[in-house]
Amino acid sequence: MSINLADAVAVLERTPATLATLLSDLPEVWAFSREGEGTWSPYDVVGHLMQCERTNWIPRLRHIIAGETKPFAPLNRTAQFTDSRGKSLGELLATFSELRRQNLAELAALGLSSEDLGRRGLHPDLGDVTLGALVATWVVHDLDHVAQVARTMAKVYAEEVGPWRAYLSILRDRRNPG
Amino acid sequence: MSINLADAVAVLERTPATLATLLSDLPEVWAFSREGEGTWSPYDVVGHLMQCERTNWIPRLRHIIAGETKPFAPLNRTAQFTDSRGKSLGELLATFSELRRQNLAELAALGLSSEDLGRRGLHPDLGDVTLGALVATWVVHDLDHVAQVARTMAKVYAEEVGPWRAYLSILRDRRNPG
Repeated sequence: MSINLADAVAVLERTPATLATLLSDLPEVWAFSREGEGTWSPYDVVGHLMQCERTNWIPRLRHIIAGETKPFAPLNRTAQFTDSRGKSLGELLATFSELRRQNLAELAALGLSSEDLGRRGLHPDLGDVTLGALVATWVVHDLDHVAQVARTMAKVYAEEVGPWRAYLSILRDRRNPG
Repeated sequence: MSINLADAVAVLERTPATLATLLSDLPEVWAFSREGEGTWSPYDVVGHLMQCERTNWIPRLRHIIAGETKPFAPLNRTAQFTDSRGKSLGELLATFSELRRQNLAELAALGLSSEDLGRRGLHPDLGDVTLGALVATWVVHDLDHVAQVARTMAKVYAEEVGPWRAYLSILRDRRNPG
């Protein structure tokens, strides 16, 4: 149940470059595709990840380290729809990469021990959580959105694959938004 | 229903570098993780993608271009379990990248027209298929396996995220093998 911080960081430090490799200069048919109404395009996902670097992970980590007993501030999960306006996907990818770099430098500077990973905070909806679970969530949240980007792109060709559709199980994941 | 070859190639040419960025030198806890018995680790997936470059996409494309009326040769979907033996993940990633580069060079050299995309072949199980659907399947197959790698890695921390599990929908995708 306890994470190894070096293993977590190994994923966190790769995510911006992974998404930049997959998405930089990609034709709009992919970058702005959605898997259904109310779902997010790869462009929207990168904007969201960028927002989370600003408002979620490190601010909440600091909140726990400071020994705050009040709950974390709630998040705005759709801030990217206003904050990304007018920015290219390349700009969002670069900003995400820079913010992640800064946040991992701050994480390293904190020099957290395995005991620190057991420190507790109060989530506004989920209640009692640990610092270790927050870091694990940071990792899984990255991977969830990487998988979402690949799934959303795959669905652009949902019809074009013809009878092969039967073998491409990703086309049947999450048929509905949410 | 008809694909644009340049859009398809834009994804195909990015996949090896995307996987190399995500997986190179990644701790074994991620690279050899599985999401359940009988499922594939990221290491297994890269071996499978490498095999497909050798035996699936371009050989079948050539088969159609040659006007063959007999069905495609069936594929061996588990060849990676013998062929990857003794090879490091880095070696598999490098071989996949080199084979993909060669295959995209061959695809470009064929100079396929949009009419060629409608040429037909016979799949041993699925029956009548088009060359366009084969190329679309090559793309979706890449993305399916990228999503699988991210999902498999995410599940390493299925418990460690604690109550955040409720928000991380990827942890509920494909609970069972298959």
